[in-house]
Amino acid sequence: MRNIRIIVAYDGTDLAGYQKQPDDKGLTVQGCLEYGLSKICNEPIQIYGASRTDAGVHAKFQVCTFQTSGSIPVENIPRAMIAHIPKDIVVLEALEIPLDWKPRWNIYGKEYVYTIHNQLIANPLTKRYHWHVKKPLNIDLMQAAGNELLGTHDFTTLKGTNSTPADPVKTIIGIHVEAEGSHVTISVVGDGFLYHMVRNIAGLLVDVGLGRRKVEDIKGYLAAKDRRVIGKTAPAQGLCLEEIFFTEERQQEVLQNKYSI
Amino acid sequence: MRNIRIIVAYDGTDLAGYQKQPDDKGLTVQGCLEYGLSKICNEPIQIYGASRTDAGVHAKFQVCTFQTSGSIPVENIPRAMIAHIPKDIVVLEALEIPLDWKPRWNIYGKEYVYTIHNQLIANPLTKRYHWHVKKPLNIDLMQAAGNELLGTHDFTTLKGTNSTPADPVKTIIGIHVEAEGSHVTISVVGDGFLYHMVRNIAGLLVDVGLGRRKVEDIKGYLAAKDRRVIGKTAPAQGLCLEEIFFTEERQQEVLQNKYSI
Repeated sequence: MRNIRIIVAYDGTDLAGYQKQPDDKGLTVQGCLEYGLSKICNEPIQIYGASRTDAGVHAKFQVCTFQTSGSIPVENIPRAMIAHIPKDIVVLEALEIPLDWKPRWNIYGKEYVYTIHNQLIANPLTKRYHWHVKKPLNIDLMQAAGNELLGTHDFTTLKGTNSTPADPVKTIIGIHVEAEGSHVTISVVGDGFLYHMVRNIAGLLVDVGLGRRKVEDIKGYLAAKDRRVIGKTAPAQGLCLEEIFFTEERQQEVLQNKYSI
Repeated sequence: MRNIRIIVAYDGTDLAGYQKQPDDKGLTVQGCLEYGLSKICNEPIQIYGASRTDAGVHAKFQVCTFQTSGSIPVENIPRAMIAHIPKDIVVLEALEIPLDWKPRWNIYGKEYVYTIHNQLIANPLTKRYHWHVKKPLNIDLMQAAGNELLGTHDFTTLKGTNSTPADPVKTIIGIHVEAEGSHVTISVVGDGFLYHMVRNIAGLLVDVGLGRRKVEDIKGYLAAKDRRVIGKTAPAQGLCLEEIFFTEERQQEVLQNKYSI
């Protein structure tokens, strides 16, 4: 038996999210990968993923593991999968790893990037990958709001309603808000995230950037532990799972380069 | 009567090209714009465009003009159109111009950019906007091949088969091939382009970059005036109409900054 780790990228637009669902709910990342891997390994394959991204959310770097008694060389897996899964999903890399390596236990943190097109008129060429916010955003206020979320908190306020129970205490290690012309990104590194948490952070920071909410109220929102005290969840298409950190060194490198931490 | 010039951007993936077609051929840029403009101007509108982009080709900057006796303020046109056309097409700007201004006569040149993803494994997040070329490209050879096309030539060899008759003599003012990691772009500025010409240039340069054809044979290909002496036309989704130059100054600025001419 071998344990294999794959790195996967996908355009989530036409997918029903990461997690496998009944067939009539649409294609899922997990469903497509398990189908393709079962074909190329010649046995039923079950995968374990690091992040359950929602319908419409993208990933440049999702991580999954699976065990197989099949003999396919790992270096052939990315190309072999092309014929069996939709072009929206790509296996970038496959590597044999120790049998006890599990994605949920062996990662140091994750980075998500939320993208906004901040201009009166929409951009048809990037509309699948951003939230179109028409009114001008104050980037400095958004960064100040992000700073209020840094550290270890009970993030119940930023958790999606109707989500499965999970420990609401998470640590946000870095938040970086950046504007390049009309292209605004909110990058977040944390040790883990609750259902809808990054999209709720994006919605909250945009509310601050538009002057609808104040930086000084954020501590109070967190203390309320109540989803209803904040505004709308930002739409799925702006969100991308950017990277999952396997080593502390790699996480530190990203934090230093992009977040100046 | 007023003459109005609009700048339009579109994602061509799900469109049947610029030029109006019978309804059962799919949505076209011209068809959608004329429908929307007729609605907001309250009279039948016919538009005149600068470039007939093919099905699947994108545009950041297409130019069209139309005349109207309606009274809508030009500054309201971009937003008013949003409700009447698919989200794939966006009117970025509208401006009233002299009655004798026509897009085909009053422009100095155009820039097209062809994008390639040059890596063994595909990128699902940009697949709508590039040609995926798996084997490594030699960028220096591609630039050298591009240099052979500069100047005024009879470009019959690079013209699509079955295209309508057009003067095959065109002037290519600049070609710039650039690689940023796996992202390769071929940028071309010319006074005009034949049907499929930029896609045939991209196909030819990629053949050179892969070592399938030689830089020193290009002059002979042009002299042959025969489409059959070159290889395949590069796929539509990699092509984008980048800009149309209304003034010589703007064209010179782009040529100096990006093409070092």
